[in-house]
Amino acid sequence: MRFASHMPRALAEARAAAARGETPVGAVISRGTEILAADGNRVRELSDPTAHAEILVLRAAARRLGTERLAGCDLTVTLEPCPMCAGAISLARVARLYYGAADPKSGGVEHGPRVFARSTCHHAPEIYGGIAEAAAAALLRAFFAARR
Amino acid sequence: MRFASHMPRALAEARAAAARGETPVGAVISRGTEILAADGNRVRELSDPTAHAEILVLRAAARRLGTERLAGCDLTVTLEPCPMCAGAISLARVARLYYGAADPKSGGVEHGPRVFARSTCHHAPEIYGGIAEAAAAALLRAFFAARR
Repeated sequence: MRFASHMPRALAEARAAAARGETPVGAVISRGTEILAADGNRVRELSDPTAHAEILVLRAAARRLGTERLAGCDLTVTLEPCPMCAGAISLARVARLYYGAADPKSGGVEHGPRVFARSTCHHAPEIYGGIAEAAAAALLRAFFAARR
Repeated sequence: MRFASHMPRALAEARAAAARGETPVGAVISRGTEILAADGNRVRELSDPTAHAEILVLRAAARRLGTERLAGCDLTVTLEPCPMCAGAISLARVARLYYGAADPKSGGVEHGPRVFARSTCHHAPEIYGGIAEAAAAALLRAFFAARR
C-alpha cells in the first residue's frame, strides 16, 4: 500500500485536546509513513492565540528538520484549517494537505478567504478534504454540545 | 496628545531584523502608551515558518497577560500583514491594527485574501494603513536589493 493515512493519529490528538478542555482539533506532519510531529490544540493551556494544532506541528517539524521549509512534507488535520493556519501551510511549503471536516464558520481553505485560491498565494499544497470527516465532525459536535 | 505612535519602535525592530539577515519587518503590541511586546522577524534564526514579527509579539503579549485574547491591545507593524498574520490578529481580538507599507505581493489585509473583509471573519480590528510607509518600504527595498 503506497498511502497510509495519518488521520487516525490526528483524531487521537483531537480527542486528547478535548480531554484537556481545548477545541478538539489534531494534526500530524509526516514525510511518507514517518511522523515528524503530532499535536492537538493548546490555545488555552499556553495562553497562545496561535496555538492551533496545525501551527504547533508546523513549528515542531521545522525545528526538528532545522529549516523553515517543509518541502516534501504533508499535513493531516481533523478540521479545515482557518485562514491563519492556511497561511502558515503556504509559507512552510507543505506538499499535501489532508483534512477531515469542512468548517463553513471559520475555515480558510474552501470557505471564507480561500487562502490557497488567490493569485497572490505563492505556494498551495495539493488538497484532499473530507477524510474521515464524520469522525472529526462528531468530536467537535460532542465538545460544543457539552459546553452549552 | 492622545495618540503616541509605536511605529518608530516597530521600525527599529525591523532594522534589527535586517541586521540579523531576516526580512526587515518589525512589530509592537501596545496598550495605550505601554509596550507589551516588540520584536522583528526571526524565521531563519528559529527555523520557524510562523516566526513573523506579528506572530512573535502576539504570542509574547498573550503569554505576558496570561490570556489568548488581547482585547484592548493594538498591533503596530511596518508592513501589511500576510494572511497568516491577519488570521492571528483576528483570533487574538486585537483592537487596532496600524501598518506601514502595503504589500501587494504577499499582503492579506488590502490584498490577496483580504482576511478581515470576509463575512466569516469573526473579529476585525480597526485598520490604519500607510503609517510611515516610506521608511518601512525603503528598509525592505534596501534589504532585497542587497540580496540580489
